[in-house]
Amino acid sequence: MAFSYALLNQDKGSQARRGTITTSRGVIETPVFMPVGTQGTVKGMLPEALKEIGAQIILANTYHLYLRPGHELVKQLGGLHAFMNWDRPILTDSGGFQVFSLGELRKITEEGASFQSHLDGSRHLLTPELSMEIQLALGSDIVMVFDECIPHPAERKYVAESTALSLRWAKRCREVIPAGSRAALFGIVQGGMETDLRRQSAEQLQEIGFEGYALGGLSVGEETALMYEMMEYSLPLLPANRPRYVIGVGTPENLVEGVARGCDMFDCVMPTRNARNGVLFTSFGKISIKQARYRDDSQPIDPACDCYVCRNYSRAYLRHLYTSGEILASVLNTHHNLYYYQRLMADMRQALEADAFGEFRADFYRKREQTELLR
Amino acid sequence: MAFSYALLNQDKGSQARRGTITTSRGVIETPVFMPVGTQGTVKGMLPEALKEIGAQIILANTYHLYLRPGHELVKQLGGLHAFMNWDRPILTDSGGFQVFSLGELRKITEEGASFQSHLDGSRHLLTPELSMEIQLALGSDIVMVFDECIPHPAERKYVAESTALSLRWAKRCREVIPAGSRAALFGIVQGGMETDLRRQSAEQLQEIGFEGYALGGLSVGEETALMYEMMEYSLPLLPANRPRYVIGVGTPENLVEGVARGCDMFDCVMPTRNARNGVLFTSFGKISIKQARYRDDSQPIDPACDCYVCRNYSRAYLRHLYTSGEILASVLNTHHNLYYYQRLMADMRQALEADAFGEFRADFYRKREQTELLR
Repeated sequence: MAFSYALLNQDKGSQARRGTITTSRGVIETPVFMPVGTQGTVKGMLPEALKEIGAQIILANTYHLYLRPGHELVKQLGGLHAFMNWDRPILTDSGGFQVFSLGELRKITEEGASFQSHLDGSRHLLTPELSMEIQLALGSDIVMVFDECIPHPAERKYVAESTALSLRWAKRCREVIPAGSRAALFGIVQGGMETDLRRQSAEQLQEIGFEGYALGGLSVGEETALMYEMMEYSLPLLPANRPRYVIGVGTPENLVEGVARGCDMFDCVMPTRNARNGVLFTSFGKISIKQARYRDDSQPIDPACDCYVCRNYSRAYLRHLYTSGEILASVLNTHHNLYYYQRLMADMRQALEADAFGEFRADFYRKREQTELLR
Repeated sequence: MAFSYALLNQDKGSQARRGTITTSRGVIETPVFMPVGTQGTVKGMLPEALKEIGAQIILANTYHLYLRPGHELVKQLGGLHAFMNWDRPILTDSGGFQVFSLGELRKITEEGASFQSHLDGSRHLLTPELSMEIQLALGSDIVMVFDECIPHPAERKYVAESTALSLRWAKRCREVIPAGSRAALFGIVQGGMETDLRRQSAEQLQEIGFEGYALGGLSVGEETALMYEMMEYSLPLLPANRPRYVIGVGTPENLVEGVARGCDMFDCVMPTRNARNGVLFTSFGKISIKQARYRDDSQPIDPACDCYVCRNYSRAYLRHLYTSGEILASVLNTHHNLYYYQRLMADMRQALEADAFGEFRADFYRKREQTELLR
């Protein structure tokens, strides 16, 4: 089936909206959170567990899979879906963010980004064309254009030049994957924290035309208020009949505020990475399961949660697993955190359907104030 | 229900036998392999996964749980079954083996074994009475007497004295847990590699009377042939109407040979530990998944295996997970290896029921000769 976005409900009190994205691998209800499966696996989660918690789409990292095991190998083995036993949609990032994170180890030219592998120091040149080739070889359902992620703070001159370069790269990506291809291609709005450059980027990307649009260069160290400001400014510049994705965001609060500003798609390593460090999300805020206070605590992580972990295990057991360095600590903590994120998105979708997003948002913050009573 | 053993089939060509052990937490079909859950978790396996592969009973380590999180805490939280979300039987070891493994850090007296914790260096005295107290607090279904595990090689004088001490300790354990208690108590035959001392130990334990009997001090570095000789000699000394358990054994071959010599119960860290090191058991022998030959191998670990892992993942994917240090490498490899062990035991039970254990045993070795054809 052709890729499309359908708007189902538009909130009256905010930009929040509920919709569906149709892909050849199934329908995605939005707003949606995408668990991150960097190396062809969402760390600690079996595909069946991801389905159990309601994950509709996952994100995979182009940079990592290109270096190991290699996109050609994955293609030869039937694509990433078959390789990792996941039959729902996959969005692949462009590799840009990881390459730019390498700092001294990379160099940008008009052609692309040359870099040294973090694994073995080998030299590579990642171009828009190669990024497309990799993402197509992986069998991605949603391909992201290859772009430069601008750090914060950055000088206006650099932001303008980088945004212009990313636009030229976006054109080259669209040439490799024309509209109507099996894989959808998303453009990425850059422009740093400069609103006029954001507007220009959004407009020029729409002139090229993409199946969806993302905001890049957010959650890169700026103040939360500034990030919200950028979302608030940039998201309405994007067409209402296309999905909107804010890359690499964020905390539960960020998701609620992102949805309120009109975002449909999110991804972040926060729930999975925090889980492996024993930090767990609950309806009343975060807790650190390693704390001595949980030593003999027979309660579940979150008494308000109905996930597999909260139905079957105590904080005391999870603390024991964590302090003992057991594999199941990561497995169970990840399961809970990702469930929390999935449930949060499902609750927002339900509130939007019931025309009650405003109440949901107020209630979300009210619960956090009960922290000291419940934890 | 009271603890009991029922003999269902006795092989004609060997000592192999099929039976059932009835416990208050359900019936166990024997011969049985018990996955090891040292710290209140079988590393990398959810309880549901253990059930899926047919695990009927697991082993937990008294020494580890005594030190962390502490048996009193586990008791307070409803016992080990509730703590770890496992409602089938649990056998607990006595703690003896772990204490004796501490070498210089422990000292044996008539009273018990004093030792320093491997976690924090704290001093402890583990006595037969304390071992019973811990195992009862954990809620164990099968409690093992506290004994000294004799290393190999050892001088006859030491073996005789140690075996006599273990017998006096066994009496003290029986006093704490008299016959008819909810928890079954198993005696452990010692005697090193000295057949007359093994006989004496077996006879004296039976004078005390236990619900089951184990052979201790095997798989401690002796030649395999000597281990088989000791099984062959000692197992027939044990009463036919009680389960027989060889502690800490072993390889798939050891299990087949142990069953042939009349053993009903086994436990070993081999399938779980090997899994975490990328060593996988198959019908044609072991393979090391990290080898470059599996880089692009689209086959399952074992084409003859029907486990969840072999039905869904390729050797290439498992190699990728392993070389990438992913959590799922341990999870999937452990699942496969434990399934292999469970399936092996189920196949032996089936062969015994069909009066075809001899054929099964011959076939088991025949398959291994095909190694180079299949791997």
